[in-house]
Amino acid sequence: MSTGTFTLPLGDLHASLADPLLDAMTFLNEVTERYPHALSFAPGRPHEGFFEPEDVHAYLDTYLTHLAERGLSGSAVRTALFQYGPTKGIVADLVARTLANDEGVDADPAALVLTVGAQEGMLLVLRALCATPEDVLLVSSPCYVGVTGAARLLDLATVPVPEGPDGGPDPAAVRAAARAVRAAGRRPRALYVVPDFANPSGTSMPLRARSGLLAVAAEEGLLVIEDNPYGFFSREERGRPTLKALDRRHQVVHLGSFAKTCFPGARLGYVLADQPVLAPDGRTTLLADELAKLKSMTTVNTPALSQAVIGGMLLHHGCRLRAANAPARAHYAANLAVLLRELERHFPAAERARLGVSWNEPEGGFFAVLEVPFTADEAAMERCARDHGVLWTPMGPFYPAGGGERRLRLSISALSARQIEAGVARLADFVRAAAP
Amino acid sequence: MSTGTFTLPLGDLHASLADPLLDAMTFLNEVTERYPHALSFAPGRPHEGFFEPEDVHAYLDTYLTHLAERGLSGSAVRTALFQYGPTKGIVADLVARTLANDEGVDADPAALVLTVGAQEGMLLVLRALCATPEDVLLVSSPCYVGVTGAARLLDLATVPVPEGPDGGPDPAAVRAAARAVRAAGRRPRALYVVPDFANPSGTSMPLRARSGLLAVAAEEGLLVIEDNPYGFFSREERGRPTLKALDRRHQVVHLGSFAKTCFPGARLGYVLADQPVLAPDGRTTLLADELAKLKSMTTVNTPALSQAVIGGMLLHHGCRLRAANAPARAHYAANLAVLLRELERHFPAAERARLGVSWNEPEGGFFAVLEVPFTADEAAMERCARDHGVLWTPMGPFYPAGGGERRLRLSISALSARQIEAGVARLADFVRAAAP
Repeated sequence: MSTGTFTLPLGDLHASLADPLLDAMTFLNEVTERYPHALSFAPGRPHEGFFEPEDVHAYLDTYLTHLAERGLSGSAVRTALFQYGPTKGIVADLVARTLANDEGVDADPAALVLTVGAQEGMLLVLRALCATPEDVLLVSSPCYVGVTGAARLLDLATVPVPEGPDGGPDPAAVRAAARAVRAAGRRPRALYVVPDFANPSGTSMPLRARSGLLAVAAEEGLLVIEDNPYGFFSREERGRPTLKALDRRHQVVHLGSFAKTCFPGARLGYVLADQPVLAPDGRTTLLADELAKLKSMTTVNTPALSQAVIGGMLLHHGCRLRAANAPARAHYAANLAVLLRELERHFPAAERARLGVSWNEPEGGFFAVLEVPFTADEAAMERCARDHGVLWTPMGPFYPAGGGERRLRLSISALSARQIEAGVARLADFVRAAAP
Repeated sequence: MSTGTFTLPLGDLHASLADPLLDAMTFLNEVTERYPHALSFAPGRPHEGFFEPEDVHAYLDTYLTHLAERGLSGSAVRTALFQYGPTKGIVADLVARTLANDEGVDADPAALVLTVGAQEGMLLVLRALCATPEDVLLVSSPCYVGVTGAARLLDLATVPVPEGPDGGPDPAAVRAAARAVRAAGRRPRALYVVPDFANPSGTSMPLRARSGLLAVAAEEGLLVIEDNPYGFFSREERGRPTLKALDRRHQVVHLGSFAKTCFPGARLGYVLADQPVLAPDGRTTLLADELAKLKSMTTVNTPALSQAVIGGMLLHHGCRLRAANAPARAHYAANLAVLLRELERHFPAAERARLGVSWNEPEGGFFAVLEVPFTADEAAMERCARDHGVLWTPMGPFYPAGGGERRLRLSISALSARQIEAGVARLADFVRAAAP
């Protein structure tokens, strides 16, 4: 070791780096680069047609003017923009107003922590709650990979709860999973769920399942971690209430993201964590205060620059992002309708029965799931890109305990209607060619 | 649990929340709020005199113009600014040029990961390296609290190595610590060190100790994690070479921050991690690639907005931040000289011997340490704020294994020369009053 290059065996690095999901993501990126002309149903990124660079300048100025109008001196405005700031962030008041206007959620700004995307929020919540090797996180399955990744990074155990046929985890399945965990001598702490237009399945929890889930969580002493990046993008004018809007007992930790409702490049998210935390000496804080302490060890602050630009965007839209996103909602809803229509056209009922093809019909969001009569794995995905010029995401890696081998995720967010039409035609050719 | 508010006992949350350091920080903030007119030697934040909001607009435009000049279409520029981007970041080329110009470090842009402050870089490096309960991180002591905090968040063991009288950990002490850890059946993986103007001690490693440390690290199979936020702010025109500039064997992981050389509100930092990582199948990546995989589980991307603004600032200064920081260097050097001169004036040699007062004489940076003949704890700090109108930081919490009880940290970065003069006079009154 005393001479030559210092080389690290991968096996000496942390086990989360051996996550097969990371290999899957790397492979997907490689295939995407290798077939640059393929139409891609893979990326879940938002449509770019709504972004203009000049807007960044305008939003920043709007926010700085707002600070000045609130009575801050020029020097105080400069401090807010350029310096280290409060760990919980500087735009909690604007986020709280937006939550009240858009979701009917009455959020105390003191219960909010601004984070570097919802991802950092997940990491903080998981770290706070899962304190011992006995602590377990329940996750709906198939599951967003960000939360299982964060759990692996923290060496936390997760237990999958299958999504029911109506979308979201069935309350009875959550109860059974919590009890099984407890019977095994471990402690179920929380359930992670995306109630609206989940990534990857696209499904949404019916209203009754939402209240049922809250009742089960109360009985079992579980917190519910609600992640809500796609909630505004329902096909109907108005979606369902979030779990947080239904929460009367501080049972729900709500993760928010401005990546889809504003833009991803700010990397701004937040956690609404209004749970009282009781110290041994009787003092009470909010879970948000404890998350902020953890945040001082992950990123210290969320960039003031990002908060100022998004803060200005919220002000510009009167803290009403649902209304501001009406064109985006219409765009995604139209795209999803085109996808479902084209699937129907290329696979009429008789033929899909014969082939063994089916798909779900999400009520909104970016994703739908196609079930095919063969293994939809990386090899199939690459063949499809090479021979048919179309890309998608294998669903297998989204199932923490296995499953989904014949399912693929189709994302409509970054395509045009024409691209979706052409893409489904190519995909149909591939499915017919690959079917046994 | 089925009715009423969901309350979390603090004891059920993660143990890092019981870190006494967090209480110390909270207490310091509370005292600062309670005595708003006290002169404060506490905060380590940069001087604000160099910041102007209009600059943000100019830097952003500079960066976007640069992308266009490199041949990116309007649509590609928009994607770079607004969308999710590569996990390793979008300004590695500019950071590499800056490292070459300012530090004589020949960095491969592929070995860089842009992070949300150096803090996220620490978290990623610690997570990657400390893979099992046997893995141990050595830290110079007294130690920057960000790294011990990140280790606690990840449940990693740290072992302190005392700073020698010349500043920085003595190479022989590092060897002894590594061997003691190994003799106890554990595995020393890396040493964290701030070679220049360390926080909190202000001391710097002599040149010979730098090469000595690299030799010991090579012998003991240790990586060196070099954190370098203050390197430019030497009292002499030119400081010493960084450990990375002396590194011939990929032994040094270099953490950088733009918080002090540009501004904190962008929260932009980076990791230079050029270590080869060898997979079981013989494929080789760089440690930077593995850190990026972990980053996809902490914050996904560093905000493109922050990267664009700092990227524009680098371009504006021809990727030469050392030259751009000449006024800042002069400001901090003058402040440090005022502090040392005033301490000398208020505690002439005979009196400081009589009282048992001493201080170190850092060659640059933001901090110096004063040793007093009584316990310099929170209670003393509050008395000092109340009765003498001056604030400072107790050193005790910076010593992971205890120590430093009679030491206090004085920061000069956010004060004017006049404030330092007045502050030292008040501090001297306090020390005389508190001395036994």
